[in-house]
Amino acid sequence: MKSVILLSGGLDSTTTLALAQKQGFDLYCLTFDYGQRHKVELDRARDIAKHFGAVDHQVVKIDLRQFGGSALTASIDVPIGRNQQEMAAEIPITYVPARNTIFLSFCLAYAEVKEATDIFIGVNAVDYSGYPDCRPEFIKAFENLANLATKAGVEGKSRLKIHTPLIELSKAEIIKKGFELGVDYAMTHSCYDPKEGGVSCGVCDSCQLRLKGFQEAGVKDPIKYSL
Amino acid sequence: MKSVILLSGGLDSTTTLALAQKQGFDLYCLTFDYGQRHKVELDRARDIAKHFGAVDHQVVKIDLRQFGGSALTASIDVPIGRNQQEMAAEIPITYVPARNTIFLSFCLAYAEVKEATDIFIGVNAVDYSGYPDCRPEFIKAFENLANLATKAGVEGKSRLKIHTPLIELSKAEIIKKGFELGVDYAMTHSCYDPKEGGVSCGVCDSCQLRLKGFQEAGVKDPIKYSL
Repeated sequence: MKSVILLSGGLDSTTTLALAQKQGFDLYCLTFDYGQRHKVELDRARDIAKHFGAVDHQVVKIDLRQFGGSALTASIDVPIGRNQQEMAAEIPITYVPARNTIFLSFCLAYAEVKEATDIFIGVNAVDYSGYPDCRPEFIKAFENLANLATKAGVEGKSRLKIHTPLIELSKAEIIKKGFELGVDYAMTHSCYDPKEGGVSCGVCDSCQLRLKGFQEAGVKDPIKYSL
Repeated sequence: MKSVILLSGGLDSTTTLALAQKQGFDLYCLTFDYGQRHKVELDRARDIAKHFGAVDHQVVKIDLRQFGGSALTASIDVPIGRNQQEMAAEIPITYVPARNTIFLSFCLAYAEVKEATDIFIGVNAVDYSGYPDCRPEFIKAFENLANLATKAGVEGKSRLKIHTPLIELSKAEIIKKGFELGVDYAMTHSCYDPKEGGVSCGVCDSCQLRLKGFQEAGVKDPIKYSL
């Protein structure tokens, strides 16, 4: 069974990858070089795909900066030092317009060419407090679209499924699950605003959620922080 | 009112652009450089956007060849000399996996950044005999997705609409409508396999549909053909 895995090189997508492998899927990984400020993600994604023995790993280059509109791709400062309540109060400035719609569309093209019918994406409850395109109803709508958009769907040969194994989990639960599967989180990267050598800042929203997750899971985060 | 127009530089998208303008929309045009074999399309799209006084025109570069799988992007010969029945009998080899899903996803990102709530795409009845992602049910599913995927949709500020003004029309009807609107079809390009200087081949599926459309509309196609 072939599966397409959206792999950012972060904690969530790496755990998702491990879960797909555990379910017996062959791994076709897709990573985006989308003008993100944290390019170290791409190196991590390459190492992780290799480590898990992925059959194929494609890095797709798209320029989401072209339209502007997000602190992750434009030259806007990412917010630092906020608590989870503050993060959840609004759609974050790190939101990239239509990002998951674009990412899943490419997953769909990749799946169609490879004749895979299973796509894995590591969206979760922590994300969908803020990002509209991480919510379960969005994923369901994309799955519906995918089955109307493709040859295989039209010809009734197979039904495409979007797997979101983390969607109900908190960051701590994700980390615990990863530990059970033997995931080495030292390979992963989460920081929105890494310092020299890819060292994580420790204060952006993503670092804070990660650190809080490890704390709540009762395990030590193996990566280095500058603060 | 701002609108995002998917502009390929072909006959259908140019007619769609003219219709959006007639309805009073400001024009934000989006064109894809996706590794198509017929790059002359891009020059035509630039000229057309300028001619119609578009507020903005973005050319997005994405590499759909990376996954392979279509005669339009891979090094597979495009079929020639087929009649419309033969074309309609199967999903064509010129089908690019998930192409309209990807294109509409970028339209959505562009619309969100520009705060446009109207997207125009020139899909039509001729196309959807063969391409799954040109059918009305696909468009409807994308519109549903779009309203779940975006900030504006989530915050209930506005509802995004996908306009398909050509969806019920034959090629001849599209051409007649364009003529009424004063569209100069000499600016447009349709050929999948153009010869030197961008001259159309006259025998690929796209040229044949175009020529048949002009014939049925009872008007002369102003572009040059090599055959």
